[in-house]
Formats: sequence, C-alpha cells, structure tokens
Amino acid sequence: MNKADILVHNGTILTMDSQNKIIHNGMVAISGNTISYIGKPAPNAWQSPARPTAGGDNKDSIKAKKELDIQGGLIIPGLINSHTHAAMTLFRGLADDLPLMEWLHNYIFPAEGKMDADFVRVGTLLACAEMIMAGTTTFCDMYLFEEEVARAAKEAGMRSVVGEVIYDFPSPNYGALEKGFIYTEELIERWKQDPLINIAVEPHSLFTCGEELLVKANDLALRSGVPLIIHLSETEEEVNEIKKRFGKRPVEHLKDLGLLGSHLIVDHCVHVNESEIELLAENDVRVVHNPESNMKLASGIAPVPEMIAKGITVGLGTDGCASNNNLDLFGEMDMAAKLHKVNNLDPTVMSAQTLVEMATIEGAKALGLEKITGSLEVGKRADLIVIDTNKPHLVPMYNPYSHLVYVAGGHDVRHSIIDGQIVMEDRRLLTLDVEDIIERSKEKANMVREWVKMKAGR
Amino acid sequence: MNKADILVHNGTILTMDSQNKIIHNGMVAISGNTISYIGKPAPNAWQSPARPTAGGDNKDSIKAKKELDIQGGLIIPGLINSHTHAAMTLFRGLADDLPLMEWLHNYIFPAEGKMDADFVRVGTLLACAEMIMAGTTTFCDMYLFEEEVARAAKEAGMRSVVGEVIYDFPSPNYGALEKGFIYTEELIERWKQDPLINIAVEPHSLFTCGEELLVKANDLALRSGVPLIIHLSETEEEVNEIKKRFGKRPVEHLKDLGLLGSHLIVDHCVHVNESEIELLAENDVRVVHNPESNMKLASGIAPVPEMIAKGITVGLGTDGCASNNNLDLFGEMDMAAKLHKVNNLDPTVMSAQTLVEMATIEGAKALGLEKITGSLEVGKRADLIVIDTNKPHLVPMYNPYSHLVYVAGGHDVRHSIIDGQIVMEDRRLLTLDVEDIIERSKEKANMVREWVKMKAGR
Repeated sequence: MNKADILVHNGTILTMDSQNKIIHNGMVAISGNTISYIGKPAPNAWQSPARPTAGGDNKDSIKAKKELDIQGGLIIPGLINSHTHAAMTLFRGLADDLPLMEWLHNYIFPAEGKMDADFVRVGTLLACAEMIMAGTTTFCDMYLFEEEVARAAKEAGMRSVVGEVIYDFPSPNYGALEKGFIYTEELIERWKQDPLINIAVEPHSLFTCGEELLVKANDLALRSGVPLIIHLSETEEEVNEIKKRFGKRPVEHLKDLGLLGSHLIVDHCVHVNESEIELLAENDVRVVHNPESNMKLASGIAPVPEMIAKGITVGLGTDGCASNNNLDLFGEMDMAAKLHKVNNLDPTVMSAQTLVEMATIEGAKALGLEKITGSLEVGKRADLIVIDTNKPHLVPMYNPYSHLVYVAGGHDVRHSIIDGQIVMEDRRLLTLDVEDIIERSKEKANMVREWVKMKAGR
Repeated sequence: MNKADILVHNGTILTMDSQNKIIHNGMVAISGNTISYIGKPAPNAWQSPARPTAGGDNKDSIKAKKELDIQGGLIIPGLINSHTHAAMTLFRGLADDLPLMEWLHNYIFPAEGKMDADFVRVGTLLACAEMIMAGTTTFCDMYLFEEEVARAAKEAGMRSVVGEVIYDFPSPNYGALEKGFIYTEELIERWKQDPLINIAVEPHSLFTCGEELLVKANDLALRSGVPLIIHLSETEEEVNEIKKRFGKRPVEHLKDLGLLGSHLIVDHCVHVNESEIELLAENDVRVVHNPESNMKLASGIAPVPEMIAKGITVGLGTDGCASNNNLDLFGEMDMAAKLHKVNNLDPTVMSAQTLVEMATIEGAKALGLEKITGSLEVGKRADLIVIDTNKPHLVPMYNPYSHLVYVAGGHDVRHSIIDGQIVMEDRRLLTLDVEDIIERSKEKANMVREWVKMKAGR
C-alpha cells in the first residue's frame, strides 16, 4: 500500500506536459507539496520523490489522508495570471467607457494617490479570493506596497511573483526613487526562502522610467537572479513618445540599454513591429498578453500569433480590475482566442489548446517558474484545479480544451490545490475569510468614493 | 394590506424602462403573470392591473404567497437571446478552430443530416436549462423540428420565438419545400394563443433561398402578423455570392423583393455597407448581433455602433453552441463591448448601459415583444432575474451596469422568474429535471460521435 497526503481521483487529467498527455479516469497523488503520482488508478510503479520507497503490502493502490473523488471532472494545472495589479479590485467598475486620460486623471490617479498599505492589503486579499475561486493558483503582481501583496498572497496560500513599481516619481509607498530600490532589495532578501512568494524588480514603463533607473533595475535583477518586469508598448501614444524622446522604438531602446534577455518579462506588447518581434525572439524575452484590458481601453491588438510563430513564450494576464473588470482567466482565454481569429479573419489561429498552454505552462515559462508549476508532472509542486463538468453548459464534452476555453468560467472550478495545500474545496475557501474580506472591501470602496468625489448613489 | 403572488425585495432594481430608472432598496410584486408593483418597500400608491383596487387595511405593505429576500442583489429584466439554434448544444465543442467549410462539411452537416425530432427535443431542453441558469428568459430560435423546440420551451417555462428553417433543399424534418410552409402555418395556428410561445417565418438565408421562396415567406409573415427572420450577410463570401447572382448587395436584394419592414429581423449583418445601413434604418428592420460566433468563425465585425447611431434596433444573440460555445449572454455583452472598443480604437463606444439595453429592452423590440417583456414596468409580464452580488468578484460595486457587462457571468444569476413563474430558485431549476437532461444529452452525444465517425477517446 502506497501512501500520499492527498489523492484526487476519478477524473480526466490534462497534464499540459511536453506531450500534452491526457489521462482518462486518472488520479493525482500529492505528498507534501509535490505531485508524487499521476496516472491510472492501479499503478504498477509508484514514484514518490517525497517517499521514494514507500514500502507496503499492495502496489496496486494509493491511500491518502484526504481523498477527493471528482466524479468525472477535469484535473488541470492551476492557472497562471501572468500580469495583474491585484489591489485594483477595489477600483473595479469605478469608471468605465471613458477616454483613457479622463479615466486615469479623474479616477485612478486621485484614488491611488491616497492609498495606504492597508488598502493594498485588503484589495489583494479580495483579489486572491476571486482568483482562487476562478482557478488561478499563481499570479504576477505589479503595484505599490508590495510587501502587503506578498503577505496577502502568503495568507491566501497562493503562489506569486511580486514586485514594487519603481518610476521617476515620488511613490505613495516609499517616497523618493532611491528608496524604491532599497524597498525592492528588502523584498528580495525577506522572501528569498519562501516556497510560494517570488520577488521581481519592476520598473513601471519606458515613459515613466529614465535610462539610469532602467539600467540600475536591470543590474539589480541580474545580480539577484530575479525577473525584470516592465509594461511595454501598451499604447501607440507610448511608442510615439519613446520615438520622440530617443529616436527609436521601445524594444530598440531596451536593447541599447542592455535589458533584453530571458530574465525580462514585458507586459502588453500591443504595438511592436516585425523587427521588434525578431529582437524579442532572439533574446528570449518573455511576453504577457492582456487581451481584455487592451480591448476595453481600446489600446489595440497585440500580434500574438506572430510572436508565438517566432517562438516567443507568451503568457496570459488579466491586468488590473480597473480595466477588465475581473480576474477570470477562463474569460481571458475565450476572449483571446476569438479576438485573434476575427482579427486575422482565420478561425484556425489561436486554438483552444494554445490558449490553455498560455494560461498554464507557457505562463509558468514566462515567469521562470516552469520547473515547479504550470503542468502536472511527478516531482513538480502540486498546483492543480478541478473543474466540475456535470452542469448543463458543460454537456456534452467532445474536447476538454475546447470546453476550458469556449465554455467554462472560473465558477466551474470546484477544488483548488496550491503547493500541496487545499485552498478551496467544493467552492469553499479554506485559507481566507470571505465575508470579512467583502466587508472590509466595501469599507475601502466608501473611502474611494470620497477620494474621487463621486456623487452619492452611483 | 395589498396582496401579490410573488414579492422580490431588498435589492437594487434596474428597470431598463425608457428613463433607465434605478431603484435602490426596491421591490417588485407579481400578480399572476404580471408585474403589479415596482418601487420602494412602503408604497403610497399600489397599482395592480391584476387587482386594480386591492382594498385593505394597510397601504404601506405588500404581502405575497412567496417572498424572495434577495439581500442586496440586483433585480433586472430577464435577458433576451435574440438569435440561437438551441438544439446545437449537442454539437458544443464537436469541432473548433477549423476552416469554415471543413467545420460545416465534415462535422455539422453530417450530424444535422441524421438528426430527428427527439434529438432536437433533448438538445433544446439542454439549451433551456443552460439559458435559464445563465439568466436568459426569452430566446429566438431558428432550426429544424421546431414543434419540438416550442414544446421544450413550454416545458421549461421559457418565452420564445421559434420558427422552422425553410430553404430550397429537402429538409430532414419536413422533406420538400412546400411542406416547410405547411409546417410553419401549422406552428402558427397551433401556438397562436400561447402566452409564452411565438412563431416566426424563417427562411434560412439569401444564398439558400430563391426569390420565390422569399416572397412567399414574406407574404406568410405579413398575413399572419408574425416576424420574418433571416440570416443576412454573415460572411463576405455570402455577399459576393449574392452580388454575383443578382448584381446587387444583399440588403438591396431584400428591398427589391419587398421584404424590408419592421416585421423583418436580420441576424448577423457583419458585412453591410453604409447605404445598406441606411436602408435598414429607413425601413425599421431589426438587427441581431452575434459577436462571439462572428469572432470564433472569423466572419468579421458587424458595424454595430454605426447601426445604433442610425437608430436601428439591435438585439444580442449567442448564435448556436457549435460556434460560441455557450449560451451565456453575460459573456456576449462583455465580448461585444470590448470588441467594438478595440475595433474603433475608442473606449467610449458601446457603453455598459448600451449592452444591457441590447440584452433586454432592445432585444424585446427586435423580436416585437417590447410591450410584454424587456423592462420592469407595471403591467408588463413578470420576466426578471436576480443577481447575487455578495461574491468576491462582484465586490465592490460602483456601477451596476458595469458589473453586469464586465464582471458578472450567467452563474451569478440566483433566481429567475418568467411570465410570473419561478423557474429557478437559488440556482435550482424548478421546471426541468437537469440530471435526466444531462443523461439523455450524453446519449445523444454518443450518437453524434458515431455520425461524424470521430475517433474514440477524443
């Protein structure tokens, strides 16, 4: 008899491994924080890195302290939200359908200017609750007061990459620029042993960060062995601004500063031309696509099929809730697939499987976490979700990839396990007090209403 | 004391009436199948068409046999799916990401050729279960064996407009063309007194219907006082085909045949030029927009903002599940808003409120049902849904329209009432046996697998 801590069984497993193996009537065993078995219910070979020689009288079965019979559902890797600003959940729907500058200057900036650590903490907890309930197990964050983001993610039990925004302005968090670097170094030092929390160096963008800042940020990232993350070419105005200032396009500017490399993650890449795509590909730069935000803000359509064709690793992100307005990666997959089909007038581009890859293993690669998450393989950390397929809108099922992209929503996720910990069971969150978070979020929203001097009752 | 059959209270009401009135802490009373009161909890004036002089000792309260305390949720008109092929739920995900002709000829047509009445019945019941659970209370159907669709909708308690596809081919249902007209006339006669089911005359498209058929269909619709519904200009190939055959564009062809009028509902209208939009507007033709299907099949982007600007009534549809692949109008609203923003590079087009109008009152106008449904007003039929807003992804709420379009999904619908009947309470369907429908749908899917000779295990 082999033993495990958790056994998830009686489902169809989409491993998202290098062969995209699918296992029908399969089971996943978890020992500690690691996947110790994946396959059919009566294994002949039991591989457990945690208990490699689990002795026993019966090699045909695995017993676990906790068993989840998922009744024919789908078992897939937890989804990876490769770009968000988690605490912006508290600005969800604050202002929509407005010109970009009006949205930023009359709503978002005034509110952000008054934020404090507790605001970010509550907003991030709300985001974690929403993300877990929608099947996300890893997120990459860029915002202010990121120590609070790291703590909230840790409390929620979520895997994350977090980094404090650095730019050539005083920050509501750390004040002057130099302190942004000190703050980031402290984050790196404080969290370096943590199994869930990863730190990144995160200069905001080319139009808010001068050359000196960018070079210094790159040095810190390389020296510390952490990713360098930046918004890039989200809008055409931004590209024009960089061309005006530096006489070259954004990717060329990054190249000349020596920033291109596999440690660099660039968010958006809506307005990149062919030669910039070549540069990104040659230098193994990682891209994160945020279709819903790019659509809602009318920024444009990133050339994702072209980037993937060039071999660029492209992850998927929701961006923040002020421009989406939710954190559901299922909707993001659906929108991305359909957007690129109609944009290319070709129904064959961006297949359902491609989208599931972007939301799982490609996202993990984008964030440099592919050795520990993004696919279901023995030895990897146990980050997985279970989809309940026994609902009218998920019947019949001819192709699970198609269902995940074109039909399912975050609400169809029944269980979630991150780093071997069950964080949601039967849609009940086990790490967070949802009612308390909702209550505190509503209080923060009342503050926001004051800040932006909104009329009562809106 | 005033009496009602059902009282829905303690929520924010979006009436979608001509002033788009919003009532906070409001209640809706239902007497029989009609809305008898809508407003604040302590009304001074009690208007009930059903019981116009409801006498009583206490004008300050309404008592009802059934009360639903919705704890601060949203009460909105039931959503209207203005174009679908309901039974195609059974082809959901059968084939995706394929060139249109391969999809049609290798999968959809072979399967449709073998369908029978029971197949359509089961597929439609599955669709009704899915639609009710996603907040849709009215749907407009175009398919085969529509008597079964009418019966299934009736069983589900859904309001619907149904019509049998007529074209210049033998039909798997009625055989030769003439019988299609007889079948339609029988549908009209059989259902004319029904409070829920409405019949339409539905020639398939200009490329499958000759001039004689179209004129005859139009005569039948006008003579019977029912809508005439047709697919129009979904693909560019279709427009080119019509130009080749008749030397004019599709809308001009319809005009010359005398079909343009307020009784005509045209589905898709992806490829219509400026002068065609003028013709549609002048003749008060109703349009149904199906963004997800048009995107997924890479058909193109309908000029919806332009059509609305010209005063055309535009409803929203999901199209069938083979090209979407679900029937959730919340996702459709979200996708439509974002698609047109990015397509116009303007974040102000297609506001959240515009989308909610399209999915409610404008849809009702498109189908000619605006006197009985599509908004919450005293005297209208009680078609309403309740959204549960007490969930992490719906917190905070600054603007209910924004939440409905950009955040909520069909799964957030808690209760649904159609024609005064509670069809879903706390997400439990009261008119349909979901488990039985799912079981029978899986059996039908096994038949489909045989029909299209799919490989086992896919």
